[in-house]
Amino acid sequence: MTMLNVQVNRDRLWHSLMDLARIGATDKGGVRRLALTELDGEGRALVCRWFREAGLDVTVDRIGNLFARRPGIDPSLPPVVSGSHIDTQPSGGKFDGNYGVMAALEVARTLNERKIHTRAPYEVAIWTNEEGTRFTPVMMGSGVFAGAFELDYALAQRDLDGCSVQEALEGIGYAGDAQVGGRSIGAYYEAHIEQGPVLEDLGHTVGVVTGALGLRWYDLVFTGQDSHAGPTPMRLRKDALLGAARIVEGVNRIALDRQPDARATVGFMQVSPNSRNVVPGSVRMSVDMRHPRDDGLDAMEMDLRALSDNVAAALDLRAELTRVTSYAPVRFNEACVNAVREAAHRFGYRHSDIVSGAGHDACYVARVAPTGMIFVPCEGGISHNEIENATPEDLEAGCNVLLHAVLASAGIAA
Amino acid sequence: MTMLNVQVNRDRLWHSLMDLARIGATDKGGVRRLALTELDGEGRALVCRWFREAGLDVTVDRIGNLFARRPGIDPSLPPVVSGSHIDTQPSGGKFDGNYGVMAALEVARTLNERKIHTRAPYEVAIWTNEEGTRFTPVMMGSGVFAGAFELDYALAQRDLDGCSVQEALEGIGYAGDAQVGGRSIGAYYEAHIEQGPVLEDLGHTVGVVTGALGLRWYDLVFTGQDSHAGPTPMRLRKDALLGAARIVEGVNRIALDRQPDARATVGFMQVSPNSRNVVPGSVRMSVDMRHPRDDGLDAMEMDLRALSDNVAAALDLRAELTRVTSYAPVRFNEACVNAVREAAHRFGYRHSDIVSGAGHDACYVARVAPTGMIFVPCEGGISHNEIENATPEDLEAGCNVLLHAVLASAGIAA
Repeated sequence: MTMLNVQVNRDRLWHSLMDLARIGATDKGGVRRLALTELDGEGRALVCRWFREAGLDVTVDRIGNLFARRPGIDPSLPPVVSGSHIDTQPSGGKFDGNYGVMAALEVARTLNERKIHTRAPYEVAIWTNEEGTRFTPVMMGSGVFAGAFELDYALAQRDLDGCSVQEALEGIGYAGDAQVGGRSIGAYYEAHIEQGPVLEDLGHTVGVVTGALGLRWYDLVFTGQDSHAGPTPMRLRKDALLGAARIVEGVNRIALDRQPDARATVGFMQVSPNSRNVVPGSVRMSVDMRHPRDDGLDAMEMDLRALSDNVAAALDLRAELTRVTSYAPVRFNEACVNAVREAAHRFGYRHSDIVSGAGHDACYVARVAPTGMIFVPCEGGISHNEIENATPEDLEAGCNVLLHAVLASAGIAA
Repeated sequence: MTMLNVQVNRDRLWHSLMDLARIGATDKGGVRRLALTELDGEGRALVCRWFREAGLDVTVDRIGNLFARRPGIDPSLPPVVSGSHIDTQPSGGKFDGNYGVMAALEVARTLNERKIHTRAPYEVAIWTNEEGTRFTPVMMGSGVFAGAFELDYALAQRDLDGCSVQEALEGIGYAGDAQVGGRSIGAYYEAHIEQGPVLEDLGHTVGVVTGALGLRWYDLVFTGQDSHAGPTPMRLRKDALLGAARIVEGVNRIALDRQPDARATVGFMQVSPNSRNVVPGSVRMSVDMRHPRDDGLDAMEMDLRALSDNVAAALDLRAELTRVTSYAPVRFNEACVNAVREAAHRFGYRHSDIVSGAGHDACYVARVAPTGMIFVPCEGGISHNEIENATPEDLEAGCNVLLHAVLASAGIAA
């Protein structure tokens, strides 16, 4: 019965998104609803009301993750889960995270409406603090769930005002008592805006996410010698910014040499003393490198180290290169990826396989459950921004794909 | 009688410098004595006491320039003038400017001691506000003196607290009533630390300054598109920092193609949004280009414009290049330069011709009087810094050269 006439309700999905976006709405059309603030509490309360209205049974775990369960015919089967997060960036948009939760809710609403009983139970998940702007680390709730870090560590994290995660959870009434993780999940799906320009550029509606790029972050400091731009001849300079410029060009080249897989970026640069007529004596910069395979990241790192050494030697600079963070590449579950691809194909949506360049809750959940993701285009590829936008039609398409992937994994009662 | 046994007193020169450096002394051994502050007033008062003790007659003009006159045998001759400034950078050193004034004073003291009467009068000058850190423009006193800008314009300039130059002059008692400039000067000499590394690198004691590099300053803004470092493939980026890096490299190349004359520097860069995982959407940067000839500056500017256009086109960026300041190259007077070179030669000091890379009061005075400058080495080429340093021996050598250049221009009574 996984038939094409079982489809989600576009308007209901859109209006739920718009209603949720009122909580923390900004003047420029975005949303500011930081994790575990009063506004996050209001958002959770609204969505929980919708969960109850849909007949779902809500559980809260000790890190504040929410699971809203719709029973299956066979209670012995592990649930199929779908969700995302509803916390936002400080100047965030209406769709990042929120779409994944509203789409998962829309799936439950559609199943109710069509009186479809799944074999496995179905749960809608809201993961705590995905954005990580008030409390680090990012993807906190799904990270604890997947065992990426300890519950006590996460609960003890504090914001700039000294408030801990534990205190913030209690403050908004979402310090649950369910164990975090440690239970079996049949499959996990997450729908999300792409947050990049690829689908829009291709004119495609659905991205079949096969995994996520691995990520390594570096700090690089070049130290030379401040000197006056006027009296210091070229041959007697130790120009740290010239070194930094060569790194920017070289980092770009490291990624271009490994297309279409690799990405590399210098996003941050601090020049000292940063004065118009002084040759810069030191520059601090970041390097962000991403690749779908560990061996690719290893090779990029080797190139970066050689580049940094060579530039320093050529310009008589001192270089300090430090790796500050790394995330391993993620490969999603083949059956889940196939379920997404087949659903997109059956609906006739223009689609392509895509690797997520950013981290998502699904990247952690993939450590403990078969996982897939569905991307839909966002306007101009812009996200983490108040002008973030997506069309009702694309959001509907992604949600239809989610519905049918969920049905493929959960099974339908005869 | 311009004999080598007429020499300045090294210890007296050194101790005067050290005494003056106590006013506004910083913990790290530097001096903070901003133009027309109470401390500048204290510094002026101390030097004026020394002027009076040396029998010099002090005049203050309307912009606060001080002239301390020692009569010549022939009062009809225009004076030979030597001096510099005693205001400092916010984190300045003991020698920049101060050396030129103390050396000129030491010349007068030596002439007194040796009972040498010059034909032309001799004047020690202190120019107001050379550094330009409290009030712009830089080289204010000498600029008004030379007619580079109007007296009323200079007097109306205000510091960040809203205090005008006129008010500040009155506040410390140096709003004089003498006309600014408009009188004949027979020759002007200024001794100064090099503020660069060339003499030290050559192992030379004296720089015979033949002129000053012309200077052009530019602002350049590249605008691309902020995007996430993860989800945005290389081919869909508009990376403003990559553009900026190519400018840094290209600006360096523009100078290297014109050695040994040219210098070019990117000293300032501001990246936006300057976040580790965001491809930079805009970069603001400065470009400083210097050359001893106008046609050289013209050619460098043409190269910069072409570079900026080409980089913007290649990376799909918008470039806005604006020239914000320019100073024409300066050539000092041949007779004055020769007098300096001959004095250095006669003393047997290792010396070389050098072009000043920085602006000095002498650059403005050169517009209205035959002018020369004398450079002495400073440690590591470092200036505008609390660790600025020079040796008593080098300072003595520069002062001996100054003395004999002054005598050559002023003439000695039989």
